[in-house]
Amino acid sequence: MKKYKLSYIANLLKGSLFGEDIEITGVASIHNARRGDITFLFNKKFTELAVKSDASAFVVSEGIKLENKNTIVVKNPSYAQAVILNLFYHLREYTPQISNKAFVAESAKIDEKVTIMDFAYIDENATIENGSVIYPFVYVGRNVRIGKNVRIYPHAVLMDDTILGDNVIISPGAVIGSDGFGYAFDGTKYIKIPQVGRVVIEDDVEVGANTTIDRATIDQTQIGKGTKIDNLVMIAHNVNIGENCIIVGQVGIAGSAKIGNNAIFGGQVGIADHAEIGNNVMIAAQSGVSGKVEDGAKLAGTYAIDFKKWLKIQAILNDLPELKKKIEQILKGSQNGD
Amino acid sequence: MKKYKLSYIANLLKGSLFGEDIEITGVASIHNARRGDITFLFNKKFTELAVKSDASAFVVSEGIKLENKNTIVVKNPSYAQAVILNLFYHLREYTPQISNKAFVAESAKIDEKVTIMDFAYIDENATIENGSVIYPFVYVGRNVRIGKNVRIYPHAVLMDDTILGDNVIISPGAVIGSDGFGYAFDGTKYIKIPQVGRVVIEDDVEVGANTTIDRATIDQTQIGKGTKIDNLVMIAHNVNIGENCIIVGQVGIAGSAKIGNNAIFGGQVGIADHAEIGNNVMIAAQSGVSGKVEDGAKLAGTYAIDFKKWLKIQAILNDLPELKKKIEQILKGSQNGD
Amino acid sequence: MKKYKLSYIANLLKGSLFGEDIEITGVASIHNARRGDITFLFNKKFTELAVKSDASAFVVSEGIKLENKNTIVVKNPSYAQAVILNLFYHLREYTPQISNKAFVAESAKIDEKVTIMDFAYIDENATIENGSVIYPFVYVGRNVRIGKNVRIYPHAVLMDDTILGDNVIISPGAVIGSDGFGYAFDGTKYIKIPQVGRVVIEDDVEVGANTTIDRATIDQTQIGKGTKIDNLVMIAHNVNIGENCIIVGQVGIAGSAKIGNNAIFGGQVGIADHAEIGNNVMIAAQSGVSGKVEDGAKLAGTYAIDFKKWLKIQAILNDLPELKKKIEQILKGSQNGD
Repeated sequence: MKKYKLSYIANLLKGSLFGEDIEITGVASIHNARRGDITFLFNKKFTELAVKSDASAFVVSEGIKLENKNTIVVKNPSYAQAVILNLFYHLREYTPQISNKAFVAESAKIDEKVTIMDFAYIDENATIENGSVIYPFVYVGRNVRIGKNVRIYPHAVLMDDTILGDNVIISPGAVIGSDGFGYAFDGTKYIKIPQVGRVVIEDDVEVGANTTIDRATIDQTQIGKGTKIDNLVMIAHNVNIGENCIIVGQVGIAGSAKIGNNAIFGGQVGIADHAEIGNNVMIAAQSGVSGKVEDGAKLAGTYAIDFKKWLKIQAILNDLPELKKKIEQILKGSQNGD
Repeated sequence: MKKYKLSYIANLLKGSLFGEDIEITGVASIHNARRGDITFLFNKKFTELAVKSDASAFVVSEGIKLENKNTIVVKNPSYAQAVILNLFYHLREYTPQISNKAFVAESAKIDEKVTIMDFAYIDENATIENGSVIYPFVYVGRNVRIGKNVRIYPHAVLMDDTILGDNVIISPGAVIGSDGFGYAFDGTKYIKIPQVGRVVIEDDVEVGANTTIDRATIDQTQIGKGTKIDNLVMIAHNVNIGENCIIVGQVGIAGSAKIGNNAIFGGQVGIADHAEIGNNVMIAAQSGVSGKVEDGAKLAGTYAIDFKKWLKIQAILNDLPELKKKIEQILKGSQNGD
Repeated sequence: MKKYKLSYIANLLKGSLFGEDIEITGVASIHNARRGDITFLFNKKFTELAVKSDASAFVVSEGIKLENKNTIVVKNPSYAQAVILNLFYHLREYTPQISNKAFVAESAKIDEKVTIMDFAYIDENATIENGSVIYPFVYVGRNVRIGKNVRIYPHAVLMDDTILGDNVIISPGAVIGSDGFGYAFDGTKYIKIPQVGRVVIEDDVEVGANTTIDRATIDQTQIGKGTKIDNLVMIAHNVNIGENCIIVGQVGIAGSAKIGNNAIFGGQVGIADHAEIGNNVMIAAQSGVSGKVEDGAKLAGTYAIDFKKWLKIQAILNDLPELKKKIEQILKGSQNGD
C-alpha cells in the first residue's frame, strides 16, 4: 500500500496545509472517500458532503473553508487532481514483447522495448520506438512512424505514412490518415482527387475515441505539440493546428483551416474551410467560425461574433416578442396620431 | 412458414379488427407488401398506396380509414410495429461456444452458454454471463463485467473496469470506458489528469454505432436502466443519465452533467458540463443547454429557452428585416417631424 | 520515374499552355515543389510563393497571372488537381489472394481476383466480386453483397444483408447496416422495434471514416450512385439519398428523410426525420432543416430559411443591441411627448 505524509503532498501541490500532518493511503471522490483517503472539494455545493465525509484530508480551492478538517488549499485545483491521482495510480504496464498472434511485416522496424499485442497489424516499413504499446486490433499502415512511449488503444487506425511523435496517445477507434474529402465535378459526376499527403502528430498530443483526422491532399495535416483532442472530433485534410490547443468533443474543422497556439474550442464548434484562427482564441460551444480571427478573440454564435456581444444579443432575442409588440404599438400610434 | 390469424394479432396489439379473420404469413412495408402480408398505414399520405396494395391486412392508426380492407386500428402505432416484427423475425441465434481463434485470458470467467466469436479479445478477470454474444473484433478489457443476454457487436470496445447489466446492446464501433478529457494547465503545458473511474451501464440499455462513453475521473459515468442511445453520441466523463431516456444521434453531453429520467434529446443537442437536467425534459434538435433545467421543461435554441417561446422568436427573426425598416422609418419620422 | 510533356498535361486538363513545352517528372504543393515538378496556384495570396518557387510549371485558375513561368490556365481547378494527381500517383495495389489468417465462411462466394487480408471476417453467403480489396479487421456480415473494385478499409463493418455496388469506397471505421434507432413506448418502458431492413449503397459512392448508416426498419436505407459522404456522418434508418450528393462531415440525417439528387450539405447540418429535400438543394453548415424543401433551394439557419435572407438577418442580429436602444428611445419620447 502506498503511503504519503500530507505535508509531502502539500509540497507537491504547492499548497498550504492546515491541520495535522497525517499519513494518506488513498484518493477517492467526496462521495466515496473513507478513512485514510484524501479527497477534493472545489465546489461549495458539496461542502456539507465534505463535513460528513470520513476522508482524512481535503484538497480545497482558495476561498473554500472547512473547519476542523485537515485541508490543503491550492490555487490550481485541476493541477492538484492530476498530481494526486498520479501519486496513487499508474498506467497499466505491459511486458515488452511482440505477440505471435499479431501480424508484423518483415520490413517493419520495431525497437526492443515495444509491446505489440494479439491481433495487431503492422504493415511494411512501419517503425515503432521504445516504450510504445500497440493494443489488439490496431492497424498500423505502411511507412507509419511511431515515436517513444506512445499508446495506441484498441481499434485505432493509422493509415499509410502517418507520423506520430513521442508520448502520443491515440484513443480507441480513432482514425488517423483516412482520405481527405476532395472531389472535382467534371460536369456530370464527382471524380476523386487522390489524397497523397499524410498526417503528422507532434509530441504529447492526445487524440480522443472515434475521432478522425484526414491525410492532406498533397502535403500534411498537422497537429502541434501538446494539443489535446476529445472524442468524435473531425479534422479535415490540410488542417494545421498549433500547440497546446484544447479541442472539445464533436468539433469539426474543415479543410485547410489554420489554427494558432493555445486555442480552446467548446463542444460541437464548426470551423469553416480555409479559416485562419490566431493564437489564444476561445470559441464557445456550438459556434460556427469562418474567415480570419485575431489573436485572443473570444467568439460565440453560429455566425460567430464577440462572445460578450453574443450574450447581449441572446438576451435581446429573448425579449424579441416584447420588442415587436412595442414597435407595433408605436406604428399604430404614429398612424392614428397626427 | 409462420402463420397467425388476424384476430390473434389484433389481440396482441390491443387493437380493433375490421374485416375478415384471415391468416397472415408475413409482414412488409406498404411499398412491397404482397398477398398474405400484413402492413402498416400510419400516415395519410400513403393511403392511395394502401388502396392499391396487395397486402392482406393493414394496421392503421386511429383516424385513418381504409374501405373494403381488413384493418386493425391501434392507438400506439410504434408498439404495433414492434409486436408484429417480433412475431415474424427473430434475432440471429448462435451456438454457445468459444472460438479457438479468439483470445480469452485464463482468469476470465465465461459462463457456459456464452458465444465468443473469432478474433474477439477477452482480457484478465473479465466476466461474461449466460446468453451473451461477443462478435468478432470486440475488445473486452480487464475486469469488465458483462451481464446476461448482452450483445456486443463487431468492433465495440469495452475498456478496463466497464460494467454492463443484462440485455444490454452495444452497437458496432461503440467505445465504452475510454479516458475522460481532463487536463491541468501547469502554466506552460497541459498535464493529463489520470482517469481512474469506470463506466456503468444498467440493464436494457442500447448504445448506438460509434458512440463513445468516457470513464469517470474517479467514480463512475452511469447510464440508467432502459435508456436508449443513438449513433455517434458523445458522453463525457462523470456524466450521470437516468432511466428510460432517448438520446438521439450526435448528441454531446459534457463532463459531470446530470440527466434525470425519461429525457428526450433531439439530434445534435449539446449539454454543457455540470448541467443539471430534471426528469421528463424534452430538448429540440441542435439546441444547447446549460445550468439547471426544471422537471418537464421543453427547450429549444442554442442558448436554450422554452420551446414555444423559441418558436415565436424564430418567427420574429424571420420578420427582422421588415421590423428594422419600420424602426428606421419611425426614427426618420421623429427626426424630420415635429 | 514518370515523365510527361507539359503539352500532354495541358491537353488532359483542357487548359491553355503558356511557356515552354518542358518535361514534368512530379507534382508537389507550392510550398514544397522542386525542379521538375508541376504545382498549383489557385489562390492569389500564394502568388509570391509561386514567383520564388523552383517548380518547373504551374497550373493556374483563370484570372491568375504568373510572368516568366510555364503555366497552364484551367477553368476547373479541382478537376486539374484530380487529373494530375492521378497521373503521378496510383492507389496501392495488392495481389489477389485470401489470407489464411482471415476467416471466410464456406458458403461465401469470393471471386477469383479478390484480396482478403489478415484478420478479415467474411460471414455466410457473403459475395465479393473481382477487383475488390478487404483490409484487416473488416467485418462482412451474412448475405452481404460487395460489387467490383470495392475497397473496404480497416475496421469497417458491414452488417448482415448490406449491398454495395461497384467502385464503392468504405473508409476506416465506418459502420453500415447497424440497427436503426426505433423503439415503442409501452407505457412504462421502451421496447425495441426489430430493424429487419437493410442498407443499399449504389455504384461509385464513398463513405467517410467512422460514418454510420443504419439499416431500414423494413425496406432499405439507400445511398444513390456517385454520392460522397464525409467522416462522422450519421444516416438514420429508412433514409433515401439521391445521386451525386455531397454530404460533408458530421451531418446528421434523421429517420425516413428523403434527399434528391445533387444535394450539397455543409458540415454539421441536421436534417429532421421525414424531411423531403428536392434536387439541387444547398444547405449551409450547421443549419437545421425539416419539412419539404423545393428543388434548387439554398438554405441556412437552425430553423433554416433562404440563405440570402438568413445572411441579412444575421447582420441585423448584430445590430440588435443598437436597435433595441433606438426603440426604447422612441418609446421614451412618445411617453414624455404629447
